[in-house]
Amino acid sequence: MPEYKAPLRDMRFLIDEVFDFSGRYQALGATDASPDMVSAILEEGAKFCEQVLAPLNRSGDEEGCHFDNGVVTTPKGFKEAYAQYVEGGWNGVSSDPAYGGQGLPHSLGLLVSEMIGASNCSWGMYPGLTRGAMSAIHAHGSAEQKQAYLPRMTAGTWTGTMCLTEPHCGTDLGIIKTRAQPNADGSYAISGTKIFISAGEHDMSENIIHLVLAKLPDAPAGTKGISLFIVPKFLLDAHGEAGARNAVACGSIEHKMGIKASATCVMNFDGATGYLIGEANKGLACMFTMMNHARLGTGMQGLCLGETSYQGAVRYAQDRLQMRALTGPKAPDKPADPIIVHPDVRRMLLTMRAFNEGNRALAYFTAQLLDIEDLAEAAEEREQAANLLAFLTPICKAFMTETGLEVTNLGMQIYGGHGFIREWGMEQLVRDCRIAPIYEGTNGIQALDLLGRKVLGSQGKLLMGFTKLIHQLCQAQAEHPQLKGKVAQLAALNKQWGELTQKVGMAAMKNPEEVGAAAVDYLMFSGYVTLAYFWLRMALVAQDKLAQNSGEAAFYETKLVTADFYFSRLLPRAAAHVAAIEAGADSLMRLSAEQFAL
Amino acid sequence: MPEYKAPLRDMRFLIDEVFDFSGRYQALGATDASPDMVSAILEEGAKFCEQVLAPLNRSGDEEGCHFDNGVVTTPKGFKEAYAQYVEGGWNGVSSDPAYGGQGLPHSLGLLVSEMIGASNCSWGMYPGLTRGAMSAIHAHGSAEQKQAYLPRMTAGTWTGTMCLTEPHCGTDLGIIKTRAQPNADGSYAISGTKIFISAGEHDMSENIIHLVLAKLPDAPAGTKGISLFIVPKFLLDAHGEAGARNAVACGSIEHKMGIKASATCVMNFDGATGYLIGEANKGLACMFTMMNHARLGTGMQGLCLGETSYQGAVRYAQDRLQMRALTGPKAPDKPADPIIVHPDVRRMLLTMRAFNEGNRALAYFTAQLLDIEDLAEAAEEREQAANLLAFLTPICKAFMTETGLEVTNLGMQIYGGHGFIREWGMEQLVRDCRIAPIYEGTNGIQALDLLGRKVLGSQGKLLMGFTKLIHQLCQAQAEHPQLKGKVAQLAALNKQWGELTQKVGMAAMKNPEEVGAAAVDYLMFSGYVTLAYFWLRMALVAQDKLAQNSGEAAFYETKLVTADFYFSRLLPRAAAHVAAIEAGADSLMRLSAEQFAL
Repeated sequence: MPEYKAPLRDMRFLIDEVFDFSGRYQALGATDASPDMVSAILEEGAKFCEQVLAPLNRSGDEEGCHFDNGVVTTPKGFKEAYAQYVEGGWNGVSSDPAYGGQGLPHSLGLLVSEMIGASNCSWGMYPGLTRGAMSAIHAHGSAEQKQAYLPRMTAGTWTGTMCLTEPHCGTDLGIIKTRAQPNADGSYAISGTKIFISAGEHDMSENIIHLVLAKLPDAPAGTKGISLFIVPKFLLDAHGEAGARNAVACGSIEHKMGIKASATCVMNFDGATGYLIGEANKGLACMFTMMNHARLGTGMQGLCLGETSYQGAVRYAQDRLQMRALTGPKAPDKPADPIIVHPDVRRMLLTMRAFNEGNRALAYFTAQLLDIEDLAEAAEEREQAANLLAFLTPICKAFMTETGLEVTNLGMQIYGGHGFIREWGMEQLVRDCRIAPIYEGTNGIQALDLLGRKVLGSQGKLLMGFTKLIHQLCQAQAEHPQLKGKVAQLAALNKQWGELTQKVGMAAMKNPEEVGAAAVDYLMFSGYVTLAYFWLRMALVAQDKLAQNSGEAAFYETKLVTADFYFSRLLPRAAAHVAAIEAGADSLMRLSAEQFAL
Repeated sequence: MPEYKAPLRDMRFLIDEVFDFSGRYQALGATDASPDMVSAILEEGAKFCEQVLAPLNRSGDEEGCHFDNGVVTTPKGFKEAYAQYVEGGWNGVSSDPAYGGQGLPHSLGLLVSEMIGASNCSWGMYPGLTRGAMSAIHAHGSAEQKQAYLPRMTAGTWTGTMCLTEPHCGTDLGIIKTRAQPNADGSYAISGTKIFISAGEHDMSENIIHLVLAKLPDAPAGTKGISLFIVPKFLLDAHGEAGARNAVACGSIEHKMGIKASATCVMNFDGATGYLIGEANKGLACMFTMMNHARLGTGMQGLCLGETSYQGAVRYAQDRLQMRALTGPKAPDKPADPIIVHPDVRRMLLTMRAFNEGNRALAYFTAQLLDIEDLAEAAEEREQAANLLAFLTPICKAFMTETGLEVTNLGMQIYGGHGFIREWGMEQLVRDCRIAPIYEGTNGIQALDLLGRKVLGSQGKLLMGFTKLIHQLCQAQAEHPQLKGKVAQLAALNKQWGELTQKVGMAAMKNPEEVGAAAVDYLMFSGYVTLAYFWLRMALVAQDKLAQNSGEAAFYETKLVTADFYFSRLLPRAAAHVAAIEAGADSLMRLSAEQFAL
């Protein structure tokens, strides 16, 4: 297994030098998030992840979860690690103090999540789902519901789930069959089967709080007839403790390609007692309010697994001796040179770095928007952040997972045959990553969300909120002595982004299929340009630091070389996506369904 | 598991309508390969693969191979299927009649291999390795060696292996440690450890003939000091039967990401009796003569797994109901439309088709070159074929496996969450495919072979052998009423191919790292242009057939639409590879090895 070390230097580069987390926290009144607090969280979080979670990653994959007659047992050590996590108060880092949380900004919580996801992706699913459920209850629950569930969920002694998917529907939640029958006492009897429920059943917590989408009797058809219910595994007794077992049970767990230590459950609701949360028939909207968090979290899995893969790959490339450099031996005393001398190995490593570090910048920037949306005093500032967040979220989810999959595959490739062998741990990262482009809304759905709902749905307003930032940066730096070439490259792509959007928008007015035909390539184009913006920002900081001669020259030079690599070798892919978009819907729609089977 | 049906219509399109296998066989004097024989082999082969091999694919993956104290047991049913294969005489289809083979052309053998690899990739490894070993013995063995081993290997009652890799070296065979000590009787005592030996030990055959690279005492250092040895598992007795056990044993089997039913063995040679094959110190050259076959075979795995994935994906896309078409319901009587109505699902399916069918054309064309190299009367014709073969082989191996991996990943994506569940069989295809870009020379090594050895090493001659074909086709079809746009697009890329090569060649004269820096992008560029050539050829045939109004219009229209898709939505990726190549070596070589770890 590649050993995981939290990349604290790179994290600090972003939070201190590029995005000024500390200054933002001050401005937002998040005074608890002092520099000392940030350091303490980073260092203690790193220790927990490196020493407790990382050692369980490969064994968890090998052992997987166990299912026995409704009981799910997590792999050896998972339960104990979770107890340590609860004990350390990690689950409540960025949760509401009213329910026992530390109340620190979301962006700080994200740093902890990154380290968890990178050290043990499967394990991270359990608290990840809990925080998702918490945010739905926090946003839509009644005061009583919040008081009943949030304190224990914040502590982590109770965990949570999101029960959406059914055997016949995932994307298309309008056709769910799970039913909610009103009981005399105001509760509901929930009946139906949910599948792919992460953390649906396990042995790590005292209670599991399911958030379940179901239909009330006589609910309107489609997505406008879905309601959200709280269904605890154990009903609360008079003291609010986990009491009698509710009529919800795990029917089986899935056998999957990856994240094998995360229990993916079939959950059977057999007249289980549930409590409506939020308004009737508004369940999908309730679920969507927490989607920004969850989708950013899924995008993070691409970064997390990519980071761990890079760490393994670079160590292997420095150790593994194979062939001589084309310019002559670099380690003449050894039987061969370390493979890091070979240009193609470097190409793979730099691709990994460029995506990882670019994705990290995108994620941290987006997490700051969560802080602003939550904490800024001015409504205008909050709205602006919310708009940017709405725009960037599908890009985070889809682009970070697509590139994360490329990164983990490259990490495996660098190991040669050994990459295919389970013992080395590199192939697990690929398998664990492979779900990220699928769940939490497939990347195809993210692309429709970006282009259809966000960009065209806002008449381009949400796009312009972001391209304006790029435009301003490019204008300000147009004459930058070292970086003006990159500035010009980015400015041209930024302009093209607007033009391309207009073109697709016009075409879509004639034929709605144009949106679906362009969506994924549009999202990928958007991702490449977005990362170029962040790479330019990072390069500007690195160039400044070098000019100031303030030390760590090798670190800042590496940033500049990686930025060069990104602009010259990865960013040109954007043009291929433009060509694909311009091919239009006709290239896809001409065949009949039957012809596909010929 | 996606049900596998041999794509006989598409196979026949290529062999009958595009490449005229039959006419070629006649011209080459391969009169046994009559149209009836071709049909019989296709139909019987399809039956065996669909009915015997395909049903064992998923169970083989789930069960894997068993290792117990040196004994390897293959999954349930594998041994019986192999007995049927031997019984049917399948192993000798294209082998030398002097040793019991049917002597049919290689291109016909390839069709059988395709069906085997598509129905059960792991199972196909056992006969695949045997044929590799057979071809080395056939090319380099003495008359006695051929007589001793080839009849039984041709029948399949004995199998073979290739023992190259050692724990400390895979690509860099110059540093192997396995030693061959001369015995008094002219044999050698072979000692050392080989790893990643596919089919190194198993329960399917009566004997296993290992071809082992080892060093003689006082052999020159590096690749010029490697010799090749035959090391049978059981030494031959006086009657040529498998007799006493030789001192070679399987130490363990690997636990891998995929191809789990293929036994990947650590083989310990402990003074095992071996027999020199070919000249001393020329072992690597002996191994390389069979590499064209083996590398084409590995490329085929990308096609095979891609084909099976497509078959599963298209069925699922027609069955799975989810959401409505953007232009209104297409199946109003059902709760939702089948997902094949959605443009993005079609984009994925068409990408799969375009790569699969393009790769199939490339493979069949390449297999015809094997026939010509083997059978043509004129030395010039043989040489021309050999040159084209040398040029296309690394493209087949690397491009077909890269795109095969993309295809299998898309197939899985179309299944949504179900794609990640083992039960559906789609994720197995991704795992099985993931080794193909790695083994038989990583794709990075293929790229160096293409650009460094083949193209620049021949002063561009091998490249021109192929670009000339493209040029001739483009000239002949420049005014084609329907296809001239594609002809122009291909002609421009073909011209760019030459210019790009010159540019890289010039740069490489100043700095040899330029070759390594450009290689993988150069190979991918080459692959995209190569497939465009074959797509144009297929489109020309389809257009002709439609003009002739000879029926099956839907089939030929589908070809044309897929060709359009390839040219408009996939071929533009070539430009991104050009940009990456033009970025040059400096973008990769500026960092120190230490900076990569910062």
